[in-house]
Amino acid sequence: MSKITIDGNTAAATIAYQFSDAATIYPITPSSTMAELCDQWASEGRKNIFGNTVKVVEMQSEAGASGALHGSLAAGALTTTFTASQGLLLMIPNMYKIAGELTPCVMHVSARALATHALSIFGDHSDVMSVRQCGWAMLASGSVQEAMDMALVSHIATLKSNVPFVHFFDGFRTSHEINTIEDIDVEKMKSIVPWDNINEFRLRSLNSNNPHQQGTAQNPDIYFQNRESTNAFYQRTPDIVQDTMNEVAKITGRKYNLFDYYGAKDAKYVIVSMGSSTTTIELTIDYLNKVYGNKYGLIKVRLYRPFATSVLLSALPDSVEKIAVLDRTKEPGADGEPLYKDVVAALFDSKFKNVEVVGGRYGLGSKEFTPSMVKAVFDNLENEKSKNGFTVGINDDLTNTSLEIKNIIHPDSGDVTECKFYGFGGDGTVSANKSSIKIIGNNTEYDGQAYFEYDSKKSGNATISHIRFGKGNINQSYMLDNIDFVAVHNQSYVTKYNILKNVKDHATLLLNTEWDMEHIDKFFPNALKKDIATRGIKLYTIDAVDIAKRLGLGNKINLIMQSAFFKLIGIMPYDKAIDEMKAFAKKAYAKAGEEAYNNNCKAIDSAKDELNEIKIPEEWKNINTSDEENTDQSYSTDKYYTDIMQPVQRLDGDS
Amino acid sequence: MSKITIDGNTAAATIAYQFSDAATIYPITPSSTMAELCDQWASEGRKNIFGNTVKVVEMQSEAGASGALHGSLAAGALTTTFTASQGLLLMIPNMYKIAGELTPCVMHVSARALATHALSIFGDHSDVMSVRQCGWAMLASGSVQEAMDMALVSHIATLKSNVPFVHFFDGFRTSHEINTIEDIDVEKMKSIVPWDNINEFRLRSLNSNNPHQQGTAQNPDIYFQNRESTNAFYQRTPDIVQDTMNEVAKITGRKYNLFDYYGAKDAKYVIVSMGSSTTTIELTIDYLNKVYGNKYGLIKVRLYRPFATSVLLSALPDSVEKIAVLDRTKEPGADGEPLYKDVVAALFDSKFKNVEVVGGRYGLGSKEFTPSMVKAVFDNLENEKSKNGFTVGINDDLTNTSLEIKNIIHPDSGDVTECKFYGFGGDGTVSANKSSIKIIGNNTEYDGQAYFEYDSKKSGNATISHIRFGKGNINQSYMLDNIDFVAVHNQSYVTKYNILKNVKDHATLLLNTEWDMEHIDKFFPNALKKDIATRGIKLYTIDAVDIAKRLGLGNKINLIMQSAFFKLIGIMPYDKAIDEMKAFAKKAYAKAGEEAYNNNCKAIDSAKDELNEIKIPEEWKNINTSDEENTDQSYSTDKYYTDIMQPVQRLDGDS
Repeated sequence: MSKITIDGNTAAATIAYQFSDAATIYPITPSSTMAELCDQWASEGRKNIFGNTVKVVEMQSEAGASGALHGSLAAGALTTTFTASQGLLLMIPNMYKIAGELTPCVMHVSARALATHALSIFGDHSDVMSVRQCGWAMLASGSVQEAMDMALVSHIATLKSNVPFVHFFDGFRTSHEINTIEDIDVEKMKSIVPWDNINEFRLRSLNSNNPHQQGTAQNPDIYFQNRESTNAFYQRTPDIVQDTMNEVAKITGRKYNLFDYYGAKDAKYVIVSMGSSTTTIELTIDYLNKVYGNKYGLIKVRLYRPFATSVLLSALPDSVEKIAVLDRTKEPGADGEPLYKDVVAALFDSKFKNVEVVGGRYGLGSKEFTPSMVKAVFDNLENEKSKNGFTVGINDDLTNTSLEIKNIIHPDSGDVTECKFYGFGGDGTVSANKSSIKIIGNNTEYDGQAYFEYDSKKSGNATISHIRFGKGNINQSYMLDNIDFVAVHNQSYVTKYNILKNVKDHATLLLNTEWDMEHIDKFFPNALKKDIATRGIKLYTIDAVDIAKRLGLGNKINLIMQSAFFKLIGIMPYDKAIDEMKAFAKKAYAKAGEEAYNNNCKAIDSAKDELNEIKIPEEWKNINTSDEENTDQSYSTDKYYTDIMQPVQRLDGDS
Repeated sequence: MSKITIDGNTAAATIAYQFSDAATIYPITPSSTMAELCDQWASEGRKNIFGNTVKVVEMQSEAGASGALHGSLAAGALTTTFTASQGLLLMIPNMYKIAGELTPCVMHVSARALATHALSIFGDHSDVMSVRQCGWAMLASGSVQEAMDMALVSHIATLKSNVPFVHFFDGFRTSHEINTIEDIDVEKMKSIVPWDNINEFRLRSLNSNNPHQQGTAQNPDIYFQNRESTNAFYQRTPDIVQDTMNEVAKITGRKYNLFDYYGAKDAKYVIVSMGSSTTTIELTIDYLNKVYGNKYGLIKVRLYRPFATSVLLSALPDSVEKIAVLDRTKEPGADGEPLYKDVVAALFDSKFKNVEVVGGRYGLGSKEFTPSMVKAVFDNLENEKSKNGFTVGINDDLTNTSLEIKNIIHPDSGDVTECKFYGFGGDGTVSANKSSIKIIGNNTEYDGQAYFEYDSKKSGNATISHIRFGKGNINQSYMLDNIDFVAVHNQSYVTKYNILKNVKDHATLLLNTEWDMEHIDKFFPNALKKDIATRGIKLYTIDAVDIAKRLGLGNKINLIMQSAFFKLIGIMPYDKAIDEMKAFAKKAYAKAGEEAYNNNCKAIDSAKDELNEIKIPEEWKNINTSDEENTDQSYSTDKYYTDIMQPVQRLDGDS
């Protein structure tokens, strides 16, 4: 097995490319990378499992992409597309047709919120839930590795079942998370491809050698009967998916089930959830069951449609007394969210009839979902009267739906190191961190994970990079909350943001600044100084702006800061890290010429000499912090500004 | 109260026009009439409740109509639209926005099947069910009268709640059924209009006097909280709808509830259903409870979203043991259809936890739903083991979902007369019948109902008109099944169709034919002759083709046949009927000139003299019918032809 460090979009697109004759695309955030990669690979001449390059066609909108998808499939070409959010909504009419005509097809969706009261480019399941009635099978991935594995399951199972598949994973959280995963060997993949089904699909196509009629209009006399004639195909699909999962397990060693149970064999309290939340819930269950002796469990929903009720029932432990179903979507006016109602319908007529089931919403628009929130969900089940229709992750003081988060927990899965970087949109921090995590994944015994908080404005605002590395796969699908290293790439952030939030005692703080000790003492907020001193934070500075200027690099301070990071973090021999950074720079600056490359190399080399360790004055420990707060007198009389705009700008909008 | 005889589309459009400043339209079958009527009324200068004519704008597609709807609403104009099927699907993106921004609006939908394996222009709830997650309130009408009443409830409740409403009724069955209903007085209507809410709506609009920002993009920090902030509006909506129903009842005398219970107070078996099926179920319950002493009941769902669980629970009788939920939609891959799952979720955590609930599908693509099918649904509940996920109305020999219809029942609601007309597309039969039912509704003590079976090819094929009249409102929402009078407007149909299907003994058969008795004896199939003789059918002929030719009317035999109908049916003085038919002809042929009108009057007058009563030979009773069948030897070896095409052409496709 070869390890690679890639994001979820790349993982899914890699498989999609292999199984497609054509891709009809209209890129939309956060699925764009999938479409763009296929386009790039096709232009580079990459071959699919049939030995051909994929024909990639960009249409005028997602409506066109889905229309072309339908037409291309009808003509006998295995065709795929990639979309999200409103893009998926525009595909609905064609989705009904493609499913109604029992056409094998996989659509990969990086699930995203829908524009309702406001637009959101971020992740939740509102888009995929809005197509659950279209007659497509739906398979959920919860991590980057799964995005690759389930993509493969989907592409094979659709050929065997003739039911089209939506393969989805969480937008940004999985689509943009970079993680070290195991690649799937193409030759092994070919060994489980159902070639006969592919032949049948091609023979069924509309062409002049095999004339037949398709897509007719039917009157009331026969429409209903014909509509029901697809039942058997849907009844067979869950078994086909499980068989395919078993075949994929043979070539990858990774075993999946339609519903995977995780946790105590005799669990009383079980969560049912889907997508990236499940990895976080797993970690939290490990921790709570071990540390507190709880009996908690989790059902991971992988095949959401067709919903295999009997499989769900046999996955549940007999000991279960209460279930919390988590939905990452909201349907105003419904008496419960979709997965909740699926589970209730499954249990209603079963031996679990008397199990109490509550439902709740989490993570809308990429709201964080953390171990502490998982604990709050279990705490709700522990209560004699458990709240139904709850929310978790917000404080709903209007309709009182939210669960209180009583304990902040950190279920570390061992030796994971957490590194956070505050960059400035466009300063190259995100790119540098992407290369750092690949350097770590490819050159050390550690697996890596990188996640990036973007602003939907995309450039010119703060970017926050979350990097984890450690031995064994890293599956915390939430942002850093127990941080070992913080890099602040813009000195003004020390007054704007709470840069030590979620930082461990004795952690390392790296600041890009022109300030010497005198200025630091003058400009650092008192609260920050006190925090640094009392919690034993190690402070380093580097004047990367000045170095970059000297080397003619403009505002690109990324390589200097990256080099300082490798120097301080000591995860691999520093010389080796320098070589790897230079190799990346060579690729990145290939077009910019020799001189640019050389200057960047100098930037990389500069860090070790220009890094300053700051000795923290003892008196910072006793500093008075009470007379700060709200220096922004000019605006402070406007309640909208002090209550809404200021917290949002401080990155405290979550609270 | 003034009585009017109109179809469901006209009923809904009448109210929509009153409450709209603007209508953004893109007509689609079967909703087109609503849009077209508003356009016509606007061009005629009709005034709405604000004293203005409505601005009607036709867009390039339903996507554009919904975008313009959103924009027009944001600008402070009360705006409506009308759509169905794929048209509704194209509105989904804007529907999320309109609801997310809490915009009062009513969209009227004549619910229609979606194109899946085949296109269907006919009615079911697949389209409205595909928007149930968009955050719109959804109010269902089950009859032409309700289409008017619920339209009014929707337009008032949306203003009070700020939640947009989808008001829907069954495509064709309600949209195109003509029925005698009570009109609502505009002045009384104005007395319950919430003028203050309209003012608030206008003041909230985007305009330069009141600058504000709307439709922003939100990041993960605040999206979820904001999304939840609409909860209170949805929580209030059911009460607002009930209050509005009560206010409407004050001005109309017709009382509705969110969930209306009908049937035995101590019912053991209850159906939950929505739309036009409910009137048929009511009739059947009356019959079965009275004739067989059954304890059956019905919950009519009116407000489908927000789904008011507690109201549903209090509407159910405590005696209920089993419930069958009927859905007029199909979601392949789901573990039950939407209304079924709503009901299960409602009961799961209630005192009805141990009630058995089964779900089933009926009426897809306008498949008939008759009293005999209602009985089959109750029979299924009577069985010790009741089938779940059933279908009713088809024979599913592939996956065995269908319920067997053991008894054909005719729960006549009193003195209803049923008249069926076989016309030829384009021969004017449908138009003549539309005027007949209005003549009856306006000039007799009878209420009338007319329903037309169309082919989606629209012209050149058989048209079948189903007319009922009787004292009191006629609410059989299914085709004629106990017929008093049959008119066959094309002599070739006697060999093609089973024209005496569902015809009562001693009924009247009127045939347009050039045949005399000798030809009749020669050309009538033996089975038909025997049927006529043994069942005492009275046979009349008229050579309308010849009369029309003599009068220069081409193929328009409609007025001749209509006149013959009034002569034979004797529902009103024949002279009066002739006057009314001539008045209609005057309007219809106003543009064609004096001569055309005069010739049509002659056609109307001709019927009484040219009508022949045929004396049925006694020997027809003993005729041998065994050696007929399948005279079409040329094709009979092709199984597709004999098993599929022949029955469909005989109008036996239903079986």
